[in-house]
Amino acid sequence: VYSLEELATKLGAEYSGDPGRRIKGLATLAGAGPGDLAFLANRRYLSQLQSTRAGAVILRPEHVGQCPSDSLLTTEPYLTYARATRLFARTESTEPGVHPRAAVAVDATVHPQASIGANVVVEAGVVIEAGVVLGANVYVGRASRVGAGTRVWPNAVIYHDVRLGRDCVIHSNAVLGSDGFGFARGPDGWEKIEQLGGVRIGDRVEIGAGTTVDRGALDDTVIEDGVIVDNLVQIAHNCRIGKNTAIAGCTGLAGSTIIGENCTLAGGVGVLGHLEICNNVHITAMTMVTKSIEKPGSYSSGTPMASTGAWKRNAVRFSQLDSIQRRLAALEKPSAN
Amino acid sequence: VYSLEELATKLGAEYSGDPGRRIKGLATLAGAGPGDLAFLANRRYLSQLQSTRAGAVILRPEHVGQCPSDSLLTTEPYLTYARATRLFARTESTEPGVHPRAAVAVDATVHPQASIGANVVVEAGVVIEAGVVLGANVYVGRASRVGAGTRVWPNAVIYHDVRLGRDCVIHSNAVLGSDGFGFARGPDGWEKIEQLGGVRIGDRVEIGAGTTVDRGALDDTVIEDGVIVDNLVQIAHNCRIGKNTAIAGCTGLAGSTIIGENCTLAGGVGVLGHLEICNNVHITAMTMVTKSIEKPGSYSSGTPMASTGAWKRNAVRFSQLDSIQRRLAALEKPSAN
Amino acid sequence: VYSLEELATKLGAEYSGDPGRRIKGLATLAGAGPGDLAFLANRRYLSQLQSTRAGAVILRPEHVGQCPSDSLLTTEPYLTYARATRLFARTESTEPGVHPRAAVAVDATVHPQASIGANVVVEAGVVIEAGVVLGANVYVGRASRVGAGTRVWPNAVIYHDVRLGRDCVIHSNAVLGSDGFGFARGPDGWEKIEQLGGVRIGDRVEIGAGTTVDRGALDDTVIEDGVIVDNLVQIAHNCRIGKNTAIAGCTGLAGSTIIGENCTLAGGVGVLGHLEICNNVHITAMTMVTKSIEKPGSYSSGTPMASTGAWKRNAVRFSQLDSIQRRLAALEKPSAN
Repeated sequence: VYSLEELATKLGAEYSGDPGRRIKGLATLAGAGPGDLAFLANRRYLSQLQSTRAGAVILRPEHVGQCPSDSLLTTEPYLTYARATRLFARTESTEPGVHPRAAVAVDATVHPQASIGANVVVEAGVVIEAGVVLGANVYVGRASRVGAGTRVWPNAVIYHDVRLGRDCVIHSNAVLGSDGFGFARGPDGWEKIEQLGGVRIGDRVEIGAGTTVDRGALDDTVIEDGVIVDNLVQIAHNCRIGKNTAIAGCTGLAGSTIIGENCTLAGGVGVLGHLEICNNVHITAMTMVTKSIEKPGSYSSGTPMASTGAWKRNAVRFSQLDSIQRRLAALEKPSAN
Repeated sequence: VYSLEELATKLGAEYSGDPGRRIKGLATLAGAGPGDLAFLANRRYLSQLQSTRAGAVILRPEHVGQCPSDSLLTTEPYLTYARATRLFARTESTEPGVHPRAAVAVDATVHPQASIGANVVVEAGVVIEAGVVLGANVYVGRASRVGAGTRVWPNAVIYHDVRLGRDCVIHSNAVLGSDGFGFARGPDGWEKIEQLGGVRIGDRVEIGAGTTVDRGALDDTVIEDGVIVDNLVQIAHNCRIGKNTAIAGCTGLAGSTIIGENCTLAGGVGVLGHLEICNNVHITAMTMVTKSIEKPGSYSSGTPMASTGAWKRNAVRFSQLDSIQRRLAALEKPSAN
Repeated sequence: VYSLEELATKLGAEYSGDPGRRIKGLATLAGAGPGDLAFLANRRYLSQLQSTRAGAVILRPEHVGQCPSDSLLTTEPYLTYARATRLFARTESTEPGVHPRAAVAVDATVHPQASIGANVVVEAGVVIEAGVVLGANVYVGRASRVGAGTRVWPNAVIYHDVRLGRDCVIHSNAVLGSDGFGFARGPDGWEKIEQLGGVRIGDRVEIGAGTTVDRGALDDTVIEDGVIVDNLVQIAHNCRIGKNTAIAGCTGLAGSTIIGENCTLAGGVGVLGHLEICNNVHITAMTMVTKSIEKPGSYSSGTPMASTGAWKRNAVRFSQLDSIQRRLAALEKPSAN
């Protein structure tokens, strides 16, 4: 519980109203009660502001006149809300120390301020830094390193030779360092190419649940500082993802693809292998990226949704597009008239 | 082993043939032997009926004349087959009790008729009701609740503040309650928005292997009664899925999307965020849903498969579609002639 | 460490240069140092050959003149490189025996030369053959069988009645044998069809991280010898994948689909159910396969990526394609002029 004045100080905002108002939690404008702090970041919700029962609202100064409650004034209400969530987050209990049912190799180095959960397995040569939390059933393979303050949720797997930076969050069932999909055709079928590289992940990286990051074939797969990756994303061997790039769920990157800094890939995007995408590129949902992108901007592919009947009529014409264009060109010729 | 007459009684069907015929298992029309019960639900398999060696066949009365064996007569053979599978399922051994290698918090409540497998971790404040089966290596986070009769297969993860209803099935490596993908842009990169909501799942819900359901940002993510979700599906924060809706594999729902009741989403569908889909909507495979749907019916997007050569010729014309339409419009103008 | 001459012998290649040159590892042409072996398989990298600092390079005899270092000569450099990776792979420590924290059922059969990791659970009736490695937290359900030499990485799950052949590799968090997505509509919602079949996987199969293979409804789901499957692939119940077929990441196969031998499915492909794809078919990335394929060759669907602005202009015309075709046909009629 914080007073409005305390919140203003902690969040670097001005306040309007009762400095002693007690705020117990965060809620949406529609769901908030008198003990809650809500926020207005998007004009679309202005009508909800007028009827909110929130004790206080984070908003831009221009909206204070329409706010029926106290408020925290800021030019960036969404960012202020993000910071407020950290004040109200109920952190999981994570006492430092190694759970008696964890199996830590004798030559692994575990900082006394790290917390190692039940059934965790830490292999030889691993280094676990201060403040790390490894949830139940996490596996950390030989010679991998988990940087200070990083949290790994239960059942995630870190193979050998994976280096994770500081203050990362790895969600459950994510896999870091599985073999890249490398095979050569031999006389009797596929012959496996052992994947001898590792994975290097920077600081403040978040990896979603069920996401897979393959180890490199010879060099490492690299994810730079501040990258955020959603659930069920596949990052193939030898990809390199630039700083502060965001990748939404169900996206797949093929091998050796290089993505620049400050890019956003929406959900379900596919990127072919050996491509290079420059900084500040935005890819809309379910786009297939088939060539390198050298110019910042927004890119898309796909067709619009329609009723299945209408779609079928149009889709069949897609298969005739080349002939449609030829027929049109024929009509355009002077001799055609 | 059941007699034909017993099966008819248990399944609410009529029978035709030897009431004492012994049926030991279920099989397809093509694979069945004299001790097996097969079924004919789809006219396409009529030819297989005529040559089946099954001891008995579940079918509609209209097909009994073409059946060389005994039969169980019903107007809904597929539903009767579904119910028959439950008679012949070999259930896994699930003795009630807590495995000595499970780690259950002292203040968690585990019903004596629940079965808690090896290496399971149950955190503080959790409630596990009667008849629940938690497979090996399952994790259940603080204050979560698993309703009576629910089965969780090995290595699935349930974060904190997740409420699962009765008689659900959660398959291996599914993740319920991981953080939603919420970040605000700050001066130095992405700032995490702590996800303070939970997940609420109704009764008789099935969640496939590897599927991820994120916790809500402030309110809960909600999956209503009777929803069935296939493998490797991503359900983002604050989605709400209505009763008896079915979602096939590899589908992804972006945040805050609301899906009505009795909808079916085929495989590989993507639904953008903050959309609303009404009841009784059917989305065909790999469709990108880019806007809300207010009318029941079937919806699609995409282009038809073709040989790569033909596809390339047509796909390049897609990029010229707007100019094709303009050229056509020019030809249509009276002055063009 | 090998001498160049030893490598030539082991890899079945000729060598050119100092037979005693000591090679300590593998590296890319660009990253190699004097103790490394590099390779040139693709003409695109010829310029890197000329400046490489590698101690030796695997290449075709025709390029030896441009190689500044010693070399290993072969007509198939990529295959020779694949084989070289096996010489330099640092295998994980896998001592035979059962970890004291594994839980093996009394009537399971575990070969003394198998290695069973910490927190592994092996249920009744399971057979684990010689040389098998089960990583930490792996679960093997009742009556399943893991063939000699197969390696299962940590946290993978094998349900009951799954038969895995010899020399397979199953990556972390893969799930083999989860229930197929089978439900019948009943009067009160979906009724589960118990999945009574199993999974049969041949020899030398590789299954990627997070990939799911569902058990069959009545018959088994089958993956034949030599098949390779990447990460986050969904293989539904009763699929059959032919020998030496390769399936890249994020692909989904719906139920009862049959894929021939020596096919390649690129990433993000979707295949509808009950289809049949013949041998030697290649499907390009993100293609939706909506019908059976009876002729070997390459197949595609989708639209080309463009800037979002250009794409929007063209995509809206896609919805008018049928009318565009009709308007064109009207212009083509003699009476239209």
